Amino acid sequence: ECYETSDLIIVTGGLGPTKDDITKKALAKLCNCEQYKYDINQARLIEDICNKRNIALTKLNRDQAFVPECCEVIINRLGTAPGMIFRLNNKNKNVILFSLPGVPYEMEHMLPAVIETVKKEFKIDSIYHRTLLTFGIPESTLASMIENWEDNLPDEIKLAYLPNPHTGVKLRLSIYGGDLDNNAQLVEKEVVKLKQILGNAIYGEGDESLESVLSKYLTYNHKTISVAESCTSGRISSILTSIPGSSVYFKGGIVAYDNSIKMNILNVKEDTLNNFGAVSAKCVEEMAENVRKLMKSDFSIATSGIAGPSGGSTDKPVGTVWIAISGPNFLESQMKVFNGNRNNNIERFSTEALNFLRLRLGLQLK
Amino acid sequence: ECYETSDLIIVTGGLGPTKDDITKKALAKLCNCEQYKYDINQARLIEDICNKRNIALTKLNRDQAFVPECCEVIINRLGTAPGMIFRLNNKNKNVILFSLPGVPYEMEHMLPAVIETVKKEFKIDSIYHRTLLTFGIPESTLASMIENWEDNLPDEIKLAYLPNPHTGVKLRLSIYGGDLDNNAQLVEKEVVKLKQILGNAIYGEGDESLESVLSKYLTYNHKTISVAESCTSGRISSILTSIPGSSVYFKGGIVAYDNSIKMNILNVKEDTLNNFGAVSAKCVEEMAENVRKLMKSDFSIATSGIAGPSGGSTDKPVGTVWIAISGPNFLESQMKVFNGNRNNNIERFSTEALNFLRLRLGLQLK
Repeated sequence: ECYETSDLIIVTGGLGPTKDDITKKALAKLCNCEQYKYDINQARLIEDICNKRNIALTKLNRDQAFVPECCEVIINRLGTAPGMIFRLNNKNKNVILFSLPGVPYEMEHMLPAVIETVKKEFKIDSIYHRTLLTFGIPESTLASMIENWEDNLPDEIKLAYLPNPHTGVKLRLSIYGGDLDNNAQLVEKEVVKLKQILGNAIYGEGDESLESVLSKYLTYNHKTISVAESCTSGRISSILTSIPGSSVYFKGGIVAYDNSIKMNILNVKEDTLNNFGAVSAKCVEEMAENVRKLMKSDFSIATSGIAGPSGGSTDKPVGTVWIAISGPNFLESQMKVFNGNRNNNIERFSTEALNFLRLRLGLQLK
Repeated sequence: ECYETSDLIIVTGGLGPTKDDITKKALAKLCNCEQYKYDINQARLIEDICNKRNIALTKLNRDQAFVPECCEVIINRLGTAPGMIFRLNNKNKNVILFSLPGVPYEMEHMLPAVIETVKKEFKIDSIYHRTLLTFGIPESTLASMIENWEDNLPDEIKLAYLPNPHTGVKLRLSIYGGDLDNNAQLVEKEVVKLKQILGNAIYGEGDESLESVLSKYLTYNHKTISVAESCTSGRISSILTSIPGSSVYFKGGIVAYDNSIKMNILNVKEDTLNNFGAVSAKCVEEMAENVRKLMKSDFSIATSGIAGPSGGSTDKPVGTVWIAISGPNFLESQMKVFNGNRNNNIERFSTEALNFLRLRLGLQLK
């Protein structure tokens, strides 16, 4: 159906080695291409992958490198199934068809090759995007705050709100067509105004993240960090170390899920747990201060809360979290309440904690 | 366009409070519905959410509860934008249109209401699915192992391979149409044969996961677990505690990213690190054994590896991980090498570690 109506078709999936994977055969038939060729580069990669993982090189694996004669291969470095580019002609209309693997990260790493080909084959209007990343202001409040600014945007600038419950609201300013340099200047003017309105709510732009912003600061200043997590249970450690090179500044963490771990390893006082409970300012402050000393780091983050679905009370409903941050000359804590399910709460507690430290360190888009 | 060709339309997104959210208006126009109504239940929920999170109840928020008179509301408990059901008539064809929020988990929690409505309005053929979950056998090897069985499947049973690089290959057996009880029996016969071929590679079925299988075992047997993570940096703790009620069996973890933490908190011997390195059997065995003692748990898991992109060597390339598991009467370790990028390696190291313990505990689909 697409073949009739489209100039560019992207197909994903069905390239695996098993009997239910029929994309390659179907496309060969569509192209009337009976001959297959052996892609030697992909074949070598398949062999390497099997050797490295110490798994048998089966006929099924090797056959992954067989592709229809008429296609152009996009090498798959992360898996065994190569991507393929087919150039078709339907009633004098040229159609270009990409067949990519269904495994998301294998597909993703082929996109640069796809984009390059598309750019070569099609005449594409310029699009200028600039995306500012905000955290901590709910979408509706944000919209009220910038209503005036938004109403006065030049007509050619389109604004999109891209909210993500965990990483905040992205504001994307776009101009379609026109001269890229001009567009950049036009958008920059508006960004300057926006920064004045939103201040430190803007933590970065483009591909940045709370963890990449903290990463840059810690790396540049030769500072280190450690974490003590209860309810977030390793998630903050996990986010911080998703950045390549994080071993330079991340020393480690204690996941103190059980209260015995809070007392015996993090030295939280029994009195604190008895009098205030594990979800309290006092508890997270002791956790943050003690993990910082234990791991000899410059900064630390601690969390304790109720992710749910059970464990809530009227005083401390599900979604409540206490967060503490500690540094050479500060120890601060705050409470927040969120409204998600278990995994959303854990995720949100974690990014909220990162944001708390970011704000304390004065990190915002310059 | 869908409106012309489809009986059932699902639209997601564009229901937010900001100016770029135009779905509600567009649908009202499509229905020629000028009147709006105030959905009091959603309005109350919006108020609750704002109160709980201690954020201002703006006009923009409140307006989320205004919906076109002609639609039926699906309440949103996780956010402010309600879902809507529109019943349209196009040239004597009835069309039912669902408008759902774009935030994935808000959308997801409305699906039961959507499915209920669809079941009522449409006559639907029965589909019988049964999904078996395997771990540790690459898709191509798996396909070779079950080739004979697959070739002899009754014609009405369709087999799908659903590979996920982190959680293994799912095998889904489906029968379309026919009597559900009959189909269940027919599939059960084949499942019995499949279990004989694949044995303990099948860890569960349906919605189960490695962590839920471990969760059931630990809860039922009143056993506890702790973890010591280097390269996986909290990810195993995070996966284990994604299960509600995990506080019963999960005591906590040490993220020992820096070698100083391995030595000072986990008591890994300096000699071990000097002679064998952090990515070694000896190191993870000490980590596993010591965290189990430190946290007084019955079982423990430890990991140390090279997630990449840097840090690899000829001996220990990026993607190498050593995993140890320890229990009252065992201490075992193994090395594996994977081929992903940083985050895929971390994820794969983590599920591989959970699978290692699962196999040692003899947990498989009965």
